[in-house]
Amino acid sequence: MEEAVWKATDVKEKVCEWRSPEQLKDLLDLELREGGEAHPQILQRCRDAIRYSVKTGHPRFFNQLYAGMDPYSLVGRFITEAINPSLYTYEVAPVFLLTEEAVLQKMIEIIGWQEGGDGIFSPGGSVSNMYAVNVARYHHCPDVKVLGLSALPRLVMFTSQECHYSVAKAAAFLGIGTNNVYVIPSDKRGKMIPAEFEKQVQRAKDEGALPFMVNATAGTTVLGAFDPLEEIADICERHNLWMHVDVTNSVAWNPHKMLMAGLQCCAFMVRDKTNLLQRCHSAQASYLFQQDKFYDVSYDTGDKSIQCSRKPDAFKFWLMWKAIGTKGLEERVERALAMARYLAEEIKKRDGFRLVMEPEYTNVCFWYIPPSLRDMADGPEFWRNVHVAPVVKERMMKKGSMMVGYQPHGDKANFFRQIIISPQVSREDMDFLLDQIHSLGMDL
Amino acid sequence: MEEAVWKATDVKEKVCEWRSPEQLKDLLDLELREGGEAHPQILQRCRDAIRYSVKTGHPRFFNQLYAGMDPYSLVGRFITEAINPSLYTYEVAPVFLLTEEAVLQKMIEIIGWQEGGDGIFSPGGSVSNMYAVNVARYHHCPDVKVLGLSALPRLVMFTSQECHYSVAKAAAFLGIGTNNVYVIPSDKRGKMIPAEFEKQVQRAKDEGALPFMVNATAGTTVLGAFDPLEEIADICERHNLWMHVDVTNSVAWNPHKMLMAGLQCCAFMVRDKTNLLQRCHSAQASYLFQQDKFYDVSYDTGDKSIQCSRKPDAFKFWLMWKAIGTKGLEERVERALAMARYLAEEIKKRDGFRLVMEPEYTNVCFWYIPPSLRDMADGPEFWRNVHVAPVVKERMMKKGSMMVGYQPHGDKANFFRQIIISPQVSREDMDFLLDQIHSLGMDL
Repeated sequence: MEEAVWKATDVKEKVCEWRSPEQLKDLLDLELREGGEAHPQILQRCRDAIRYSVKTGHPRFFNQLYAGMDPYSLVGRFITEAINPSLYTYEVAPVFLLTEEAVLQKMIEIIGWQEGGDGIFSPGGSVSNMYAVNVARYHHCPDVKVLGLSALPRLVMFTSQECHYSVAKAAAFLGIGTNNVYVIPSDKRGKMIPAEFEKQVQRAKDEGALPFMVNATAGTTVLGAFDPLEEIADICERHNLWMHVDVTNSVAWNPHKMLMAGLQCCAFMVRDKTNLLQRCHSAQASYLFQQDKFYDVSYDTGDKSIQCSRKPDAFKFWLMWKAIGTKGLEERVERALAMARYLAEEIKKRDGFRLVMEPEYTNVCFWYIPPSLRDMADGPEFWRNVHVAPVVKERMMKKGSMMVGYQPHGDKANFFRQIIISPQVSREDMDFLLDQIHSLGMDL
Repeated sequence: MEEAVWKATDVKEKVCEWRSPEQLKDLLDLELREGGEAHPQILQRCRDAIRYSVKTGHPRFFNQLYAGMDPYSLVGRFITEAINPSLYTYEVAPVFLLTEEAVLQKMIEIIGWQEGGDGIFSPGGSVSNMYAVNVARYHHCPDVKVLGLSALPRLVMFTSQECHYSVAKAAAFLGIGTNNVYVIPSDKRGKMIPAEFEKQVQRAKDEGALPFMVNATAGTTVLGAFDPLEEIADICERHNLWMHVDVTNSVAWNPHKMLMAGLQCCAFMVRDKTNLLQRCHSAQASYLFQQDKFYDVSYDTGDKSIQCSRKPDAFKFWLMWKAIGTKGLEERVERALAMARYLAEEIKKRDGFRLVMEPEYTNVCFWYIPPSLRDMADGPEFWRNVHVAPVVKERMMKKGSMMVGYQPHGDKANFFRQIIISPQVSREDMDFLLDQIHSLGMDL
């Protein structure tokens, strides 16, 4: 606890203790042998595992779309790991099925579906997006569950060029094929262009294919852009398309990100009161879902899932929500947005930093321009030289001072993508981020 | 810890503290409010959650295909929950990617693939089976990833009537359709009949469909039967079919069951050295899998997965394996098999108990015949009356003394399905099981 909780979140400690794969293999002694090891040795292995792990709860871990550590959620996770439940049926997981139901109801209320809806927690946002694709196609053609896609016309779905890569994974995994994901151009800020969307719907129809859904994104992965949901919804209504991530049909919402519920905590919700999730996914296993049980078997919600064993990911979120209230959750999001605004203003003030664009959400994308390049004219040669992010990243990881992501985007050179997630970060951490990048990259 | 670990595994405590959904909703005060709650109240909520949860680590929890509690695995889980890693890339999860690799290599060695293989941990055996179907069809027709199923002939897969329900879920989810799962009859012991399998392959070919894989089961869900793997493998070779769960192509192996690694811990492994998992599932997200990183990016294994965020389920298994060794794991399985043999012998000795069949594995299926029925002749009326399991189950849950599953099977009346998983159970627990069923059901 000392090492994995207190030291791992202490700003004075390192974010990571970098070792190359070869060095780390030697340090950890990975081999599994015939005989076991004594307790002192096992304790040493635990200490080593903690020491060489990246501290994702550290105030200067900015590398991913999750960060920080919530003590209530962590206690919830210790409880569920000790109890080791699986959410198939009420008889084996009564507390965890009811807390999941309570959390989903509240989330659906916040989304604003006044007539209610249904939902399920899944192992990650990628899997939630797969649920969306599967439910949308089942809604259009219920026969697909039994007959498969070979009995149907070619199905086509839509998403913007800025969407998360899980949409392509879902299309491949569900047998739709990545070519049948028609990619809609986005504008300069990363938002889907509605007129282009409607053009692509028409194209699919002209080809004789069956367009069935659109994936809209509220906060894109790189730029944090919001697709224009209302205009997309209007087009969906005109063409009878399922809309995912919106107020129309279904939503994937991951409290393990900005709400800090801990990996994994991902809800998929449908605006539906006809038991669509159950009809779409059920297999009615007789050894689990007996109908002659002595209690109300509508609480046995496991058959809505594509999984059999399923972790109680809602419980930690419920416990945290109880402890800090809706108001506490709101404050976290507000604080992260305020920090993103502060960072963007600082970037504008400082020499050698340049925003990729004004942030819409908490993604702040920016270039660092080392002094050697500051007098060069803006042009192809300048941008070829701005690729300093990989070297700065290598230096920060070897030092262990901080972790932040970088990437190219379209024809834009590698830039840093700073996401503010954790409410535990301060203005000092934002200043540190810029100072550190400068001190690591000023000689480049 | 006192409540969730020590008391939850103490044989003198109850297995469950039964409350109906309505009672439990009142007791837990599920509602999520605007304001948060004080620490003493949150602590009380934790105590309540533990109290009313089913104790799956209790020596008399026999209800599911997992049970017991391993202290090393639990420590591993506390560490990973505190560290909160996600297994996309080496830079954010160095320790956990390397321990996953070490565990997979050792598991592949145990399976006996001398030229090696590849694998990935997934959120449950159902998802592992989906991986198998997806990899098998990609292996047959790599175009499916891009073009989808609508560009291919109708695909057909095979499984026995005794298989796990996840095979049907996989066929529905992946767009193959449940009608295109051709179900092969099993013999009386629950094993797939090879001649019937070959007949169905021929039928699919005669219909102009493309047969591409068979799912064989090594330990069926209800009866614990093993399909005849070698004969099935011969048929696969003749007809160029992918074989899953065998020594030929791929295996789903869940250490969260008899090896007690804790939910979830599920590996999917392929006998392949061509990077098939990566080719089949990759989406090459540029914000995660940058190719200009400063270390060997072949350690960034996240793109083999259908998930984006992914929990480090291999680490707890690695730590446990280190602590007790391969020999310790073997002893657990041996002990469970010995207990199953003991229980089957006891059932044969006792009045009022009847085996459904001689157990092949650790599934012991049996009927309890109350004294009132013991003189009745074996016939339709007798079997109609033998349906006592639901009432006995209700009584044991309300008492909290024990939990064991029941179900009908084909034309057979409800029987108890006792699975011995945990090495912590003793002969006394087996005796208790039979005594308890008799004392709860003798008046029926």
